[in-house]
This record gives sequence, structure tokens and C-alpha cells, in this order.
Amino acid sequence: MIIVMKSGAAKKDKDEVLKRIKELGYKPHVIHGETRDVIGAIGDERGKAVLQALESLHGVENVVPILQPYKLASKEVKKESSLVKISDDVVIGGKQVIIMAGPCAVESEQQILDSAIAVKKAGAHVLRGGAFKPRTSPYSFQGLEEGGLKLLAKARELTGMPFVTEVIDPETADLVAEYADILQIGARNSQNFALLKKVGQLRKPVLLKRGMAMTIQEFLMSAEYVMSEGNQSVILCERGIRTFETATRNTLDLSAIPVLKEKTHLPIVIDPSHGTGNHRYVAPMCFAAVAAGADGLIVEVHPDPEHASSDGPQSLKPAKFDVMMAKLKLFAEAGDRTL
Amino acid sequence: MIIVMKSGAAKKDKDEVLKRIKELGYKPHVIHGETRDVIGAIGDERGKAVLQALESLHGVENVVPILQPYKLASKEVKKESSLVKISDDVVIGGKQVIIMAGPCAVESEQQILDSAIAVKKAGAHVLRGGAFKPRTSPYSFQGLEEGGLKLLAKARELTGMPFVTEVIDPETADLVAEYADILQIGARNSQNFALLKKVGQLRKPVLLKRGMAMTIQEFLMSAEYVMSEGNQSVILCERGIRTFETATRNTLDLSAIPVLKEKTHLPIVIDPSHGTGNHRYVAPMCFAAVAAGADGLIVEVHPDPEHASSDGPQSLKPAKFDVMMAKLKLFAEAGDRTL
Amino acid sequence: MIIVMKSGAAKKDKDEVLKRIKELGYKPHVIHGETRDVIGAIGDERGKAVLQALESLHGVENVVPILQPYKLASKEVKKESSLVKISDDVVIGGKQVIIMAGPCAVESEQQILDSAIAVKKAGAHVLRGGAFKPRTSPYSFQGLEEGGLKLLAKARELTGMPFVTEVIDPETADLVAEYADILQIGARNSQNFALLKKVGQLRKPVLLKRGMAMTIQEFLMSAEYVMSEGNQSVILCERGIRTFETATRNTLDLSAIPVLKEKTHLPIVIDPSHGTGNHRYVAPMCFAAVAAGADGLIVEVHPDPEHASSDGPQSLKPAKFDVMMAKLKLFAEAGDRTL
Amino acid sequence: MIIVMKSGAAKKDKDEVLKRIKELGYKPHVIHGETRDVIGAIGDERGKAVLQALESLHGVENVVPILQPYKLASKEVKKESSLVKISDDVVIGGKQVIIMAGPCAVESEQQILDSAIAVKKAGAHVLRGGAFKPRTSPYSFQGLEEGGLKLLAKARELTGMPFVTEVIDPETADLVAEYADILQIGARNSQNFALLKKVGQLRKPVLLKRGMAMTIQEFLMSAEYVMSEGNQSVILCERGIRTFETATRNTLDLSAIPVLKEKTHLPIVIDPSHGTGNHRYVAPMCFAAVAAGADGLIVEVHPDPEHASSDGPQSLKPAKFDVMMAKLKLFAEAGDRTL
Repeated sequence: MIIVMKSGAAKKDKDEVLKRIKELGYKPHVIHGETRDVIGAIGDERGKAVLQALESLHGVENVVPILQPYKLASKEVKKESSLVKISDDVVIGGKQVIIMAGPCAVESEQQILDSAIAVKKAGAHVLRGGAFKPRTSPYSFQGLEEGGLKLLAKARELTGMPFVTEVIDPETADLVAEYADILQIGARNSQNFALLKKVGQLRKPVLLKRGMAMTIQEFLMSAEYVMSEGNQSVILCERGIRTFETATRNTLDLSAIPVLKEKTHLPIVIDPSHGTGNHRYVAPMCFAAVAAGADGLIVEVHPDPEHASSDGPQSLKPAKFDVMMAKLKLFAEAGDRTL
Repeated sequence: MIIVMKSGAAKKDKDEVLKRIKELGYKPHVIHGETRDVIGAIGDERGKAVLQALESLHGVENVVPILQPYKLASKEVKKESSLVKISDDVVIGGKQVIIMAGPCAVESEQQILDSAIAVKKAGAHVLRGGAFKPRTSPYSFQGLEEGGLKLLAKARELTGMPFVTEVIDPETADLVAEYADILQIGARNSQNFALLKKVGQLRKPVLLKRGMAMTIQEFLMSAEYVMSEGNQSVILCERGIRTFETATRNTLDLSAIPVLKEKTHLPIVIDPSHGTGNHRYVAPMCFAAVAAGADGLIVEVHPDPEHASSDGPQSLKPAKFDVMMAKLKLFAEAGDRTL
Repeated sequence: MIIVMKSGAAKKDKDEVLKRIKELGYKPHVIHGETRDVIGAIGDERGKAVLQALESLHGVENVVPILQPYKLASKEVKKESSLVKISDDVVIGGKQVIIMAGPCAVESEQQILDSAIAVKKAGAHVLRGGAFKPRTSPYSFQGLEEGGLKLLAKARELTGMPFVTEVIDPETADLVAEYADILQIGARNSQNFALLKKVGQLRKPVLLKRGMAMTIQEFLMSAEYVMSEGNQSVILCERGIRTFETATRNTLDLSAIPVLKEKTHLPIVIDPSHGTGNHRYVAPMCFAAVAAGADGLIVEVHPDPEHASSDGPQSLKPAKFDVMMAKLKLFAEAGDRTL
Repeated sequence: MIIVMKSGAAKKDKDEVLKRIKELGYKPHVIHGETRDVIGAIGDERGKAVLQALESLHGVENVVPILQPYKLASKEVKKESSLVKISDDVVIGGKQVIIMAGPCAVESEQQILDSAIAVKKAGAHVLRGGAFKPRTSPYSFQGLEEGGLKLLAKARELTGMPFVTEVIDPETADLVAEYADILQIGARNSQNFALLKKVGQLRKPVLLKRGMAMTIQEFLMSAEYVMSEGNQSVILCERGIRTFETATRNTLDLSAIPVLKEKTHLPIVIDPSHGTGNHRYVAPMCFAAVAAGADGLIVEVHPDPEHASSDGPQSLKPAKFDVMMAKLKLFAEAGDRTL
């Protein structure tokens, strides 16, 4: 860390800072500037965020961190890209772009089986569908719970596709993990640390969604939570951040793809359905995401979006998903990827 | 809800919308405009968010909600302000401004007892202190857990002050409720619906923090979650929202006070410590919050912030808290309140 | 517009609203809801924003606009895409993706000629370069002014490429228009209405950058300003919006492409250099923009970015631009476009 | 500045950085860290932003500025608060809180004289009113221009109150300065550098509004523009920043008051009318602003807001302004200020 002293800070203030730096196990190094002194604290900052507390000391202007606070998720620690194995056929993080598709929520056997067959036919690799639903209104449909998991398992049996579904609390995590191939952590739980620790103890891949107001650095710290408990199979998912713009439900941050590719070895998936909130904008954002280097996509497809119990306006009908997938293949190939 | 049709939408598209509105239990009402038709759907929208799905229908431009989606938290349902009773002596929502103060985390017996005595002496009504800490880094101090709760209880015994402490997951909620007088839901758990439901089933007041990217409407929906489970003792807490500005840790949204006072009967507390992230900005924001009509404040006070295990830079020392409280009294009186 | 009355509003309040609606030249239409009345005001809202003032009337909860406030920029008025002609060879808005490239600022004859030759060789169609520079610091390099325009003209002569350069005030707009092929309005001037009117009176295409905190609707209103003065040749440019994220200089909003394609007939260009602020992220965002359907790109290329007088960190070196363009061709073809 | 090298950067990369630092007139100082080297560049950074360009060099991870980029606006350069004299009676920046009030736009002689008399009677010190209006729609009322200035002068004659009015371009700035006592720079022109330079050359106080997406640092850089041209009479005005929240038109950032008080000697005025966009929220935000230490307020007051040509919903009626002022006096006194 770099501790910036105030202009004209007294010698005893500087001495106090030096003393504290040493107490905390770092080596101080002073640079005498023209208008103020700057003190470097040498040592591995990770796991020692306490240096920030020096900002309370008299004469200190501010404290500037130099190192990223994550380790396991960092490209410095592991340079080659991680491959996360979902099933015998499906691996994410390699040359193949992995497509996860299906309805927002499992509503009925008919609906999930129809969806599964349709997305499989169009070329999807993983089925998505919510059994436990975190809804902003207590009066909205809350999901079929274990019944929904059973239907997802049935769809898997029928189509051979593994499935991803959301985990909403530590208590039901084991139950979900019995059925699911990928455990999804939703945007609203992206800093629910109790839940992150819990899925870190399970042995299933985790699809971690970025929170609506989460920086890239905090996103990687949440991944670090899961990994520090022993589960290295983390897939990052950008799904739109909250901004002032209201023409889209969220603002899909596609620049997160090259930023994450630079900072972490973990695979990156894009969710253009939540990212835009509008089915008319989903296909162009799928093309853009793959062109930018995404490892996968997660797309809402519903056979009858006007009757969907949730997120109808952002769901593609199977016929449109089909058209999108045909075009997506061309963009994947342009980027030397396969679909 | 108002369904706005596209300019030049076909008659069969309009007929389909009318049919769906009726199916969903609403009464449609068409306004023929100059360039397009607009259809009102008459009926209580709350608990029927499914109308939004009509946006997927052909010929529909967009769907505009008219009613607020919350009921129990709404001032339409309950016009007079709610008083939330914390203890025999402390009630929030009335003429007295309630001050909650103490360290971010309970670190030791000495530290919490010193803090309690100091804030009590300065005029605080409620002690704050974290026993279970939700930290963004898995490598940071995670709290003393039940040991911390016991120390808080000891401080209560010593000073007579009730205490507020954070609940971080449904599993430990009962344990925390055994000790605490107020259960705090942190900003990062503000849409952790499993946790909101759980504290809704407990019989202790809940201090609900606003999420970093949470609109006022979503904030009230989270309160609604707690209330719909039976617990009406909800205290709302604004603690800064995330914006582009970096001179402060968050942007404290004090206009939330009059907005919330207009929309809800629940009491409103302001947290200027997290809101600004800098002890030098805390006192002016305390004065501003009370002038704007806040029902209470929650302030971080630490006897030795340079050695604090978390949030040192935003903690006041007891001497500064003392000075702040003396001035605050004048502002409270100017607003016809007591301290 | 839709005027939403408060629950329980008095009859005389409603009568007053009805009277005012008629006075303003609209036809009122009342819908009696279960908990409140909603009043539609029928008539063309554009150019009559004064209806919003009804929000001040007693008994009115809020006023909801239905129509978009722009006309000339709107796809409702002109359904087919506009083609903006830059020169005999360069037209933007059609099948060909137009690439504008060059340094942030013109610094010397050597620098701008080298840049022009390099970007032309790599396949760019338009040269970019600033002669008048709007810098956030009064102490930074402010541009070569007319001298810079002359150098850009020299580069055009040498390479045959038209050039785009920024206009920073009404006073120097005529001078810039004498030289330039496209007049750029920078993000910080995107709501400088005096300047928008001025370039609306000139007869040169305008590249209008989106402001850092500008909604899509406001963006189109700024285009409307230019068009309402008689200049229909407006090219929209998304260059990143300001959000809480700091890993990138701005957040490039690529979903603006499909949103704008739906709402306007004007061509859309993406600026990934300012959008990300980091040369390492420029190429992936170029690919993504073209995959999402952009009509063009504007990219900073500098022969010696470490010595650039401005925006060095986001400039590509010519060799990297060359590699980017070769790959971009594949993505353009995948989207059935040419380069 | 601090230049952070990549972990494992080569010796020749470091040597290149050292060479460049010296070329640019700074003195390099290397700190050898555990995982990477960090290089301090000693020297006055202001006016030399070019160091940032080192980020383009091979082996450099990022460049961290240490000093603030403004001088004249900085409290380091001038420690005591500046007093800006508006007229013989009105000085801003001292013990007295200065209230500026009046309609958004001058609409007629009757309207502006009525407004002036009303706000004067309630205790305001300065009249506000727009003659040149920067409107987001080209179809909205654009102001009475010079006619409006003459009416403002008439109101000044009648009441003795000086007035503040907006300047929208360099061309009409001299004309406005002939009449006005304070020149307002609107939020949308807060980085219109040509305009900032122009008012910097005039000899009238400038009320500089913060832009909607402007950081505190950029705000002070815009003040620096005005001051660097010779005009030291700058009044800063916080008027709400743009965030995701839609319950208010903008988010009024009151923490800007203590932040600015720490960084600059210039006086700070708050605009709660634009800050909230709703007359019902104006009074509490006036109280809060004064409690937080603002030097003044600027408030929209209109005798007939339902018929206002602009910003009706956020304007107070004179009777409500009167009540607000009476209460405000108590808060001012609580803060040891006068009104």
C-alpha cells in the first residue's frame, strides 16, 4: 500500500505511521516529495486489509492499495485459463462457446420439457430453469421448489442436457446440489457471504452472477469466497449493472469480458436476457458477447412468454432462438470458436 | 397498468391484448389517441405482476405500472407514522431522535464495554456492534460470533442500553434474536429474500439497510417481505448508494428521508458512517439527516479507530462523538425534536 | 400523457385537471380505477411539454409521458435507415462498416501524416484528429487550432481520406467547417444547445457523441436540436457512460446499438477507445460493436502513444490496429457487412 | 505519481520507465516490493498530466496520481474561506447564509415582479430567473433573452435585490454580464470549456453548477478554468447528480458540502429544486443543506407553478417558501449562522 501524508504533516505523525506499518508486519519505505511525503508499505497486502485503518491517523491524507485483494481467482497465481467440467460432454472455458438456455422459472412439466427439447434442437448445451425463485415481491410466484428440481432432472434424462438452477439459501443448497449440474448464485445474492461459503463446500460447479452494483474487483472477491472454501469450479456471469439508463432494464457491461480475461483464469458467461430486459435486444448482444470473447451465454427461452410467470418480456420464443443460434455460429467461427 | 400499443398496431393485436387483460382478472379500458391507442387495465395490480408479461405481445410498445407494488409498508394503507418499540425506554418513530452508536465490530470485552460507556455518556440510546461480520474478503476478520453477542449483552447489562447487531443468514438468526434487541439486515443482504422471510417470522424489530443499488421502491418491497411474514416492526436505514463519485465511499441519499416519509409509515434511520466512509464527514451529515426529518441515526464510534479490525477510517473517536452530540441537540430542537 | 390522480382525490381537483387539459389543447379521457382515477390527455405531446406542469396541481400524484419527445430523429417519422454521405467514396449507414481512426490530438505534421498513412493502409475510411481540444485541465495541451486543421487537410490530400474533427464552440464552428468533412460534438458538449443549433445551421455531417450521463432519449433530443435547424446528416456516437465501475474509464453501452436501431433511422458509431480508456480492451469491443450491428467505429491510433499529448493509454499502435482490422473483417462478414 | 510495474516486469522495462520519468522533468524513486516494483515520480504533477501516458509502456500495470490536479481552487494554496461579494449588502462565504430564489424562467413583467416581491418579503437576498434557457427539447420555451434581462433589472430596481441568471454561450456572455450580478453556468455547460474561459475573463461572480455526472475533482477543475483566466469569484453549486434512483429527478449529494469544505476555499450553494425535482421535497433538503454547512441556497419559487413554462413541479409557491424560510432560520441559528 501507499500511504500519502498531508502536505506539511508533522514529523511525529510520520513517525507514528512508520511505527504502525512495522507493527502490522510490513516494511516502510519513505519517498520525500516536493509538497508531501509518500510512504510505501512493502509486504503482501492480501489478507491484511487492516493497513487501510491507517487513514485514521493524524497527518495521513489517504491510503492507496496497490495489489488486488484476491489470490486464487487471480491470473497472477494461475496463468492458463481454467476449464470447468459440467458433464462428460460439456466443458466451459475452452474453444467451444457453451450455450445455456431455457425459461426463467420451471412452471410445469409440459413447459420445461417443451423448452428443453426446443433449445436442445437449436444447439444449446445446458438447460436453465429456476425452481427456487428469488422474487422482489413477496406476492409473486416463488417457484416449484423440489418439484421443479425433479422436472429439471426429467428434462435432463429426456435430452441428455445438464442443467443450471439457482440456489437461494444455505439451507436448501444441499438439496439443489443433489439434482443440479451447476449451482447458480443470483445477482442479489452475489455478496451473500454465508451462501458463497456454503456452495464453496459443495462439489458442483458454481455460476456466480455479478451483482447490480458490483465492481469487477468485488466480483472476483466473491469468486474468491467460493474458491477459498475449496471449490475451484467457478463460472463468472455478467448480467448487466445498474446505471441511470432506463431504455434497458440494466446496462450490459460487455467490456467486463476483456477486463476479466486479463485479471482472472475463470471462464466468463454473458446473460443478455437480464442484461437488456427486452427480447428484441437479446440476439445482437449474444453476437457481441461472443465476438468479445465470452466463454458462454445464458439465454431465456420460453415457449409462451406472454403467459410466463416471470420475465416474459425478456424471453425469446424458440423460433427466434433458433434463428439467433444459426447466426451466432458465424460469429463464433469468425472468432475461431465453435458452437 | 397502462398498456401502450404501437403506432399502427393491428386490430387483432388490440383484441388479443383485451382478451388477455380479461383473462388475468382486470377490466380493460381503451383510449384512442391521435397516433396510437392506450389501454388501461383496471383492478388491483398488487400481487398480479403478470400483466407486465403483456409486453411480449405483438403490437404492444410497453406496459406502464400505475400503482406501487407494496401494501403493508404503504402510507395508503396506514396513514399515521409507526412507532417501533425497542425497549421500555426507547421507541423510534416519534418526537425523540434515536441515536445508535458503537464500533463496527465487537473485538474484545474491553473495546465493547469502553465503547458502550462512552456512547451512553454522550447521549446515545442504542448500542451497535457486529458479532457476525459480512466481509467482502474471505481473508478479513469475520467476527466473534456468539462470543460477540455475549459481550454485547454484557454491555447492555452494564449500561442499560439495548443493542442492534447484524444477522447474516437464516441459520444463525434465531441465535442472534435470543440476544439482540434489534436485528440488522445489512446492505448486501437487502434482497436476500430467504433471510428477509426468516426475520419476518421472528418477533424482534428489524433494522433494514438499503442496498447499494436499490431504488426506494425496491427498498419498500424488501420491507414488505418482512412485514408479509407477520413482523411489522421494520426500521428503514439509508446508508449511501453507489454512484460514480469516489470522493466518498458511497453517496448518502438524504432526499430518501422526505421521499420515504411520503410513501411509508415506517421510521427512517440514517447511517452517515457507511454513507460517507470518512469520519471527517460524519458530523455534518448527522446534522443534515436530523434537519431533514430522520427518526434516528446509526453512527460508528470506536475508542481506537487506527487499530480497528474494520471500518476504522469512518469511525469517530468518543471525544468527537461527544462534540457532535452536543451540536446535534441544537439541530434536533430547531426541528422541534428531542434527543 | 397519463395523469395519475391521488387515491381519494376530490372531485374539484379532478375537474381542475380536466379544465387545464382542455386549456392546453388536449382532449381528456377519464378511466375510473379501483383505488384512483387515471386521466389520459389525447393529442400530440411533442412540443407541448407543459402538460408536465400539471404535476403541481392539487390531487395529482404524477404525470406519465407516453410519446417520445423527438420527431425528426424518430423511426416513426422515417422508417428506412438514413445514409449519411461523407465524401464521394464514403457513406455511413449502409452495408459497409465505416472505420474512423487516428490520434486523439494533432500534434505535429510528422505525427498526423504518419498516422494517416498507417490507418489508411490498415483499411480505415476516415481520419480522426483533434485540432481544438476540450481538456478537463486548463493546464493541459489545448490543441494546435487552425494549424491543426491545416495539417489534417494536408493528410487528406495525401491519403484521399476525409477527416472528422471536434468543434468546441459556436465562434470557431465556421472555421472548422471550412476544413473538416465531419464536425464532431464531444461528450461534454452534448447538451451545449447553442453549439448544437450552430452546427445544425452548417452543411456538414455531424458526429454527435453521447454525454457521459445522457439517456438514450436525451441523446435523440440532442440530435433533434441539430436536425430541427435543418441539418439531417447526424451520426450518433456511443462512447461510454459513467457508472460506478472503475476498471474501465467509462462503461461502453453496446446495448445502445439495438435500442437506437429500434428508435431512430440515424447511423450509429461506437468509440471503444474512450469507452474503455485502455488500449488492451479496444479490439474486443470493436469486434463486439460490429457484431451488434454498429454502422461504424472511431478508434484512437497513435504512432507513439507513450509520448502522446493526450489519451495515450487508450491509443492503439499502428501494428495492433492492423491486426485488429484483419480480424474485424471476419466479424463484419459474419454479420453480412463489408469493411 | 506512482507507477506500479507488473509482477515480473523485465529490467529493461523498468529502465525505460525511469528514463521517461526523467525526460518529463520528474525524479524517479524505486520501491522494491515483494511481488512487484513501484516507482514514485517526484515533482509537481500539476500541469504535467502527461505522466499518465506512461501507462502505455511495456511492463507498466497502472499509474496512480497522488496530487489533486487543481491549484487556485485548492485549500492547500489558500487556507481561509473566500468571501464572494455580490453587492454592497450581499457577501457569500461568511456567517450569513445567502438565499437565492425566484422562478426558473422569466416569463412576463408581472410574473418576475410578483416573484421578486414575494421572495424578498420572505427574506431572500438574491433573485434568480432565467432569460436564456438551455432546454433539452428544441420545441420548448427558450427564454425571453435580452427582454428577460431587462425585466430582471427592473425587479432589482424595485426590490434592491441583485440577481443571478444563466449564461449559455460565449457570444451572449458580455450582454448578460452587462445586466446580471452573478453569472450562472448551468449543469449541462459545466464542462463547456470555451464558456468557462469566457466568464473567467469577465469581472462578475460566477455560480458554477456541478454537472450531472461530474466528480468533485472535475467540479474543482472547472472552477480552476474560470480562476485561471483571472476571475477568482467562483461560487460552487451542487444541484443533484444522476444515479439509478428515479423517485427523485436527481440525487442531491449533500456530502459534497463537507468534502468541498475540506478541499477548497470557495463558497458552496445547494439547489434542492433541481436536486429533487419535486416541490414537496425542497424544504427538508433546504434545512439539511444549511445544517451540513452550506453557504447558501438557490430555490425555485413561482407564483403560479401550474402555469409555469418550465420546471413547475419543482417550484414552491410563495406561501410555502415563506413557511420554509421561517423554519430555516431556526436551523441556521442552531448552526451558529444567520439568515
